[in-house]
Amino acid sequence: MNKKGVMVVLSGFSGSGKGTLMKALLERYPNYALSISCTTREPRPGEVNGREYYFVAQEEFLRMIRENQLMEHACYCGQYYGTPRPYVERQLAEGKDVLLEIDIQGALQIKEKYPDTVLVFVMPPSAEELKNRLCGRGTETEEVIAARLHRAVEEAQDMDRYDYLLVNDDLDQCVALLHGVIQSQHFRTSSQKSTIEEMRKELKSFT
Amino acid sequence: MNKKGVMVVLSGFSGSGKGTLMKALLERYPNYALSISCTTREPRPGEVNGREYYFVAQEEFLRMIRENQLMEHACYCGQYYGTPRPYVERQLAEGKDVLLEIDIQGALQIKEKYPDTVLVFVMPPSAEELKNRLCGRGTETEEVIAARLHRAVEEAQDMDRYDYLLVNDDLDQCVALLHGVIQSQHFRTSSQKSTIEEMRKELKSFT
Repeated sequence: MNKKGVMVVLSGFSGSGKGTLMKALLERYPNYALSISCTTREPRPGEVNGREYYFVAQEEFLRMIRENQLMEHACYCGQYYGTPRPYVERQLAEGKDVLLEIDIQGALQIKEKYPDTVLVFVMPPSAEELKNRLCGRGTETEEVIAARLHRAVEEAQDMDRYDYLLVNDDLDQCVALLHGVIQSQHFRTSSQKSTIEEMRKELKSFT
Repeated sequence: MNKKGVMVVLSGFSGSGKGTLMKALLERYPNYALSISCTTREPRPGEVNGREYYFVAQEEFLRMIRENQLMEHACYCGQYYGTPRPYVERQLAEGKDVLLEIDIQGALQIKEKYPDTVLVFVMPPSAEELKNRLCGRGTETEEVIAARLHRAVEEAQDMDRYDYLLVNDDLDQCVALLHGVIQSQHFRTSSQKSTIEEMRKELKSFT
């Protein structure tokens, strides 16, 4: 087994339960680290700097882009969002598997730069269930729910660009599956280049 | 989760313990089927037709090639070896995960025709340990051991064309890992095309 951690991007429709899933994964297994994104948007009530996001000024964000300190970044509604590189790289080097909760644009940017990243898409058991979950929150207007469903239709177009697709029906089962999928990555040949080189050298010394 | 089974090719150096590993996998988990190869070579003492191999005449083997009944085939030392297609396809259709114990040539033929096949290479913990295992059998001459080590050097050149590499140090642990690696394949997006299509259709019907 290699020592370096695996980078995992988790995406999913609003209402897929990916936040809960990630929280459960971090609580139940010791070897994960969570990447916190930075953003130029204002914190919402209840959000804490360094927990939901690092809230930074636009000038600071543009400096991070220039200095290549972001693994990916994107702009929505005039606000920037990005993944700070140093934390992720430090955790990976320490052997932690690092979780990134980002959307498809960021996911594909990451995959292009770091092809060993695992892209996991989380899905509710059905579209009906997704609609129920979005309505069941009771906190959103009909317009917001319609907009999220519309967004889900768009996101569904790119689902097959992910590596794995997990149906989040039963939380416990889904957490165990996600953990299994991530752990199996450590045994990919692409993660074990030095083990292969060592074996080749050793074998040759016998012949 | 998709209903169709996963096709798994297991290869490894002589002395890697892949035979024991496969037997343990079949005994411990219910959802596997083992593909039996056919060959034109003579049965060795103790080998049973339909257990180690299907022993067939050369004429019969050539007919199977002509009628496209083999998933892969190769010729060693003037003898043919191949994987009969009908059994494997039937088991996959029934949702069984099918294990093929074949060498690198066959593995790559299979991967080219069936890209969703998982190629797993099994390795002893070290080359030293491999040598010990080969000598420890006590049944082989020095020439045979040397030939097997030489073959291992050649096989090691292509190890990185496999998807996964498992070190068979502790059998129980290795069986569990192999099972985990295979089961995670069911959640690849490429195995879930119909689930994705269904979700897209359902979502569109809401907007």
